[in-house]
Amino acid sequence: MSQTNKTIATAPRNSKSISHWDIDTDVAIIGFGGAGASAAIEAADAGSKVCIFELASASGGSTALSSAEIYMGGNGGTPVQKACGYHDDTENMVNYLKACFGNQADDEKIRHYCENSIGHYNWLTGHGVPFKLSELKERAIMALTDDCLLFTGNEKAYPFTEHATPVPRGHNLEVEGDNGGPLLMKILTEAVTARAVDVHYDSRALTLIVNDDGDVEGVVVRIDQQEKTVRARKGVILCAGGFCMNEDMVKKYAPTFDCGLIPIGNPGDTGSGILMGLGVGAGTSNMHECFVSLPYYPPASLTYGILVNDKAQRFINEDCYHGRVGYNALIAQRNSSRIYFITDVEGYGDYEKMSYLGATVAGTGDSIAELEQELDLPEASLQHTVNTYNKHAETGTDPYFHKHEAWLRPIKPPYVALDCTLGRGPFYPFFTLGGLDTLPTGEVLTPERNVIKGLFAAGRTTAGIPRTAAGYASGMSVGDVTYFGRMAGKAAALS
Amino acid sequence: MSQTNKTIATAPRNSKSISHWDIDTDVAIIGFGGAGASAAIEAADAGSKVCIFELASASGGSTALSSAEIYMGGNGGTPVQKACGYHDDTENMVNYLKACFGNQADDEKIRHYCENSIGHYNWLTGHGVPFKLSELKERAIMALTDDCLLFTGNEKAYPFTEHATPVPRGHNLEVEGDNGGPLLMKILTEAVTARAVDVHYDSRALTLIVNDDGDVEGVVVRIDQQEKTVRARKGVILCAGGFCMNEDMVKKYAPTFDCGLIPIGNPGDTGSGILMGLGVGAGTSNMHECFVSLPYYPPASLTYGILVNDKAQRFINEDCYHGRVGYNALIAQRNSSRIYFITDVEGYGDYEKMSYLGATVAGTGDSIAELEQELDLPEASLQHTVNTYNKHAETGTDPYFHKHEAWLRPIKPPYVALDCTLGRGPFYPFFTLGGLDTLPTGEVLTPERNVIKGLFAAGRTTAGIPRTAAGYASGMSVGDVTYFGRMAGKAAALS
Repeated sequence: MSQTNKTIATAPRNSKSISHWDIDTDVAIIGFGGAGASAAIEAADAGSKVCIFELASASGGSTALSSAEIYMGGNGGTPVQKACGYHDDTENMVNYLKACFGNQADDEKIRHYCENSIGHYNWLTGHGVPFKLSELKERAIMALTDDCLLFTGNEKAYPFTEHATPVPRGHNLEVEGDNGGPLLMKILTEAVTARAVDVHYDSRALTLIVNDDGDVEGVVVRIDQQEKTVRARKGVILCAGGFCMNEDMVKKYAPTFDCGLIPIGNPGDTGSGILMGLGVGAGTSNMHECFVSLPYYPPASLTYGILVNDKAQRFINEDCYHGRVGYNALIAQRNSSRIYFITDVEGYGDYEKMSYLGATVAGTGDSIAELEQELDLPEASLQHTVNTYNKHAETGTDPYFHKHEAWLRPIKPPYVALDCTLGRGPFYPFFTLGGLDTLPTGEVLTPERNVIKGLFAAGRTTAGIPRTAAGYASGMSVGDVTYFGRMAGKAAALS
Repeated sequence: MSQTNKTIATAPRNSKSISHWDIDTDVAIIGFGGAGASAAIEAADAGSKVCIFELASASGGSTALSSAEIYMGGNGGTPVQKACGYHDDTENMVNYLKACFGNQADDEKIRHYCENSIGHYNWLTGHGVPFKLSELKERAIMALTDDCLLFTGNEKAYPFTEHATPVPRGHNLEVEGDNGGPLLMKILTEAVTARAVDVHYDSRALTLIVNDDGDVEGVVVRIDQQEKTVRARKGVILCAGGFCMNEDMVKKYAPTFDCGLIPIGNPGDTGSGILMGLGVGAGTSNMHECFVSLPYYPPASLTYGILVNDKAQRFINEDCYHGRVGYNALIAQRNSSRIYFITDVEGYGDYEKMSYLGATVAGTGDSIAELEQELDLPEASLQHTVNTYNKHAETGTDPYFHKHEAWLRPIKPPYVALDCTLGRGPFYPFFTLGGLDTLPTGEVLTPERNVIKGLFAAGRTTAGIPRTAAGYASGMSVGDVTYFGRMAGKAAALS
């Protein structure tokens, strides 16, 4: 027979069964990534005694693995936006984010985030996070220079241009190479340490402790092979990451993405924070969605090419963000057995040297007819698509997909096709975008959106600002996890 | 400040706080639709004392509103399949259902269902459900005659033909008109009544009752404005329907479908069973998915036409099931601002008289160029699509979408376009396909798939066989809810 619920690892313990508290604190934080660090700083600054329990032997989490192009703006513009000549209204930023996530958006969090984005910029710089007053103008996935401001999403692409004025909001740290994440976490970790927060590494949170009313009163952790009971007088904050490393959870909650994608994140992204929340009756949101990407640029010049499916149909304006392309290639085109990127030699450029994509050449041709045959596409299909695209590109228009004229240029022979079909080589990374349902304060909600007393969460343990790869921009996650980490730390300390 | 979790309506009560049991039974069933009725019959037949609590003043649920073309087969074939000359292997049925739902499939339930489908046929006929040994050969959404067997899904359509031999599995009851659902529920209700099951109508289940270990021991119901405590010694079975009538839940859990679709079901489909399960720590599955349909046939002759998006691209083989078309038109084509159905006068046929679609004529033309202009599609786009389609149709092939040759015929002038764009008239019905995660026995599982003792569920309160409109077939829901309703009734009685 099946096990009964008594054996659930994440089922909470009742505080009446706790005879002794090994650790007594105000705020217990599970996870020392971007969210946990930000929460700890704010909670300590609000006068609380704070403990962090981190599974790994060091701080960092998935934030340290990221490029950390923190997404900020509104309020007229950050100092960097202003220095680079951009004005960014808060309403413009709100409109943009709402257009990104549509019905999936958390309007309350979006408004909170946009209205306080400059404050968050100041908080980061106040802790020593360096931003140079400069802009990286090329189309890139990440800044490899120490320049700061860059477009990291779909701001300049249709249909987003119909909803908001394009403004760059990605803020890269002043550091050479793709090293923003490590530097951000180094700075935040130092800020935590300076505050005499008790940090326990190599510590696994096992289960929450609740009273008869279901209020969270603490957490059981395992340190040095021993279970320790932790009393958290003001609250427990779950900042334990997402669940992309938990195959069972991905299969169960986000089955569309259970198709051979490469999880990106740290090994602790096993959903343990979400499961602990579920164990005490928390609701979840957006669990079925993931970030996914087809990183077809750099080189930026590939943007002059076109993406087609197995019918040689285009399906997206190729000047949009790599996550939006990944979503459309993989999810919206799921009836298509193949995806190709078609370009000319000029567009191919430095592909072999600088691409992250890993897609191999599927065919070449001096004519589109030849390429079409080599790719085994229906006769005349690719010819029609390329001829039509070229005809309009000549006049700087794309009546089908509204690719911006800056990226319109007839594709000329000789031609090359990259095989972007999942499973045939290209890198399709993913991570999860669903989690516990929380208020902007980090308070965890039940499925009916009532607050669970004593329980907070932030980071990818929650459903935050970014809700789908189709509207994602680089820097939204690190922006969201640090900002709402702070809100949770503050709310727990003041509860 | 926000409410705390103490006020959650669906949070369970602790049995220690119950001083008096108003009703004492073995099995308490919440909801008297197809699942609840089937559960009650089996639980009573296994010797249990059974109570049903139904919100409405009569039995029926959403099953009574359906066409009830019960999806059955395998094991060589049902008596009807055999009489109509079809052989249906169990593995063939398993393969078909797995192809329908892919990564989203519950392989364990699919196998359980297919292996026991003939037994279910015999159980139904044993209770007097009438099936005529005849086949309805035309392509239809529902049988309006008393004929039994019909193709109700994508069995004959690509790519399903690559995975399984096409066999019809929809079993329509022997009754004239679209009256299968009412007749089925009349027969099942009589079977329940004959068993002296205690049926309480106008009774609202409020919350579950659990002990300190989290085992379910009963349920609180409201009857005649008074709360009654119900002790369920063997188990509570939640058969309270889906959540398509709960706008908040749809927005929260299935936001993609929160776009102006028409919910179909009974007013009690408010997700109350799912919420009660969540309140005691149950896990859910597939909550983001719904059935959705673009019922573009009848008349069947419309299948000779083609569907195009706002780029005049085809996107699906038009001979597939209306749910698959609805999914692809609405979800996969969500970047498209418009959807048109293009046909000729011969295909248009009796559209005005017999269609459920409600789509208005968007344009007509003696040439495709004229129609293209009238629809404001990019120049030469629709001309290319129709010319290409026609050229291949002449030879009985569709190299792009593999529409079956039986439905391939060049589209000839004069032409007509129906506007199938959501919000411009066409009927896009929907209902939910997610719910509590259960074993084939109906035992409700936690997020980690441990059994919650004393709690069972069936019907659209659970995630069952059908997981997405893209693979749905009519009759899968009624098949699933009655079959797994029975399993839950039996398992509860024997627990």
